[in-house]
Parts: sequence; C-alpha cells; structure tokens
Amino acid sequence: MPDVQDLVDSYIASWNETDPDRRREIISATWTEDASYLDPVLSGDGQDGIDAMIAAAQEQFPGHRFELSFGPDIHHERVRFAWKMYGGDGSRPVAAGVDFGTLAEDGRLRSVTGFLEQVS
Amino acid sequence: MPDVQDLVDSYIASWNETDPDRRREIISATWTEDASYLDPVLSGDGQDGIDAMIAAAQEQFPGHRFELSFGPDIHHERVRFAWKMYGGDGSRPVAAGVDFGTLAEDGRLRSVTGFLEQVS
Repeated sequence: MPDVQDLVDSYIASWNETDPDRRREIISATWTEDASYLDPVLSGDGQDGIDAMIAAAQEQFPGHRFELSFGPDIHHERVRFAWKMYGGDGSRPVAAGVDFGTLAEDGRLRSVTGFLEQVS
Repeated sequence: MPDVQDLVDSYIASWNETDPDRRREIISATWTEDASYLDPVLSGDGQDGIDAMIAAAQEQFPGHRFELSFGPDIHHERVRFAWKMYGGDGSRPVAAGVDFGTLAEDGRLRSVTGFLEQVS
C-alpha cells in the first residue's frame, strides 16, 4: 500500500510526465482501474481516460509544470492537497487548485475532484 | 431543487440549531436519506445519524456557533466551502475547517467530508 505522500507526489508527477509510456505507468500505480477525475474544466474516467485527459492538458499548456503547494492532509481514506501550475519560465504560478480525493483499499486513488483557486 | 447557497446556509444552520425538532427538519431538507458525514473526529450515517452527531457536538461545545467563511464553490454537483466555529463569547474562532460535498439529483447533500484547518 503506497504511502500517501508518495501517492500524491506520483499524482503530481503524472501531470508533469510527458513521455507517454512513463506517464501511463505512473497512472497505473496511482489510480485504480475504475478511477475518475473531475474538475470545472477537465474530466477523465478510468486509467486510459485520465491518461488522455492529462495528455490533452499537456498539449494545451506545453512546458508548464505542477507543484504540490499544500498537503497531503488525510483521514479515513480521504485526502486533500493543493497545487500550483507554473508557466514555461517557471517564475510564477499561472493556475492553482485544491484537489479532494478518495482512496481505494489498495491505497490508490479512486476519485479526485478538483477545484480552481485564485492564483496568488 | 434548492439553491446551493441556500443549501449550505441550511447546512450551517443545522449545526447551530439546538431545538431538536427544528434541527431534524433542517436536516431532512438538507441531506438525502442515505447521506453520510465524515471528518477526522466525527461521523454520521443517514439523517438520524447526522442529527445525533450534531446533537453530540452541541453538547460538547455548548453555546458555540458555526459561520460560513468561504464559498460555496460548486461544479458538477460537487461543492466545497469553509466554516469557522466561534466560542461562547463570539469574539474569535476556536475551530475552522473545509468541507467537500457531493449533491444528489434532488439538490440535497449526499456526502460531506470535512477537514480541519489551523484556526486563524
């Protein structure tokens, strides 16, 4: 069962990994087969759907990188954390959000709901 | 279908309502029959379980009041908001938290997961 800090680090890494094979490998280790992701603008169902969603986001925001900015905070297989997305020059965040997730019994993510924050 | 602002206002009101009949009435209007609540220290299942949980919290913290401090922020039947709990003298918060909820098709709360914040 993965450590929650490792799990969330892998989650962030999957958004930054642009090599398709390595990204898919991270997603398989991070999400259950029946997992789902939903935020105000993106959604993905299953490992393949989540992989395709992240690939599309990477095409839309080339060179951008996500960093964990808060958490993870966990209780009872529920987790929350926050992230910031940095633009190509990396100097300041261009987007930010809070994610709320539920974990499966094997410690992988079963669902994540994202909310967007004001960038600061 | 209740407005989400009204729903969250009712949710907060249910934590502040110490009259058992009125509290139970608010809970029926706010939560689905199969609803569940879970935070690091409290949990309640179903309308009766949630009512009993709130009654116990009110006994533990007599005279305290909850206020909405952020939100609601909603997308796709997922909602988040934040609250602060004020002590008997009402001058400063003694607890604070963030709640993530899912809504049923009829607009009532189906689940809420709470997380505790540093009091500021």
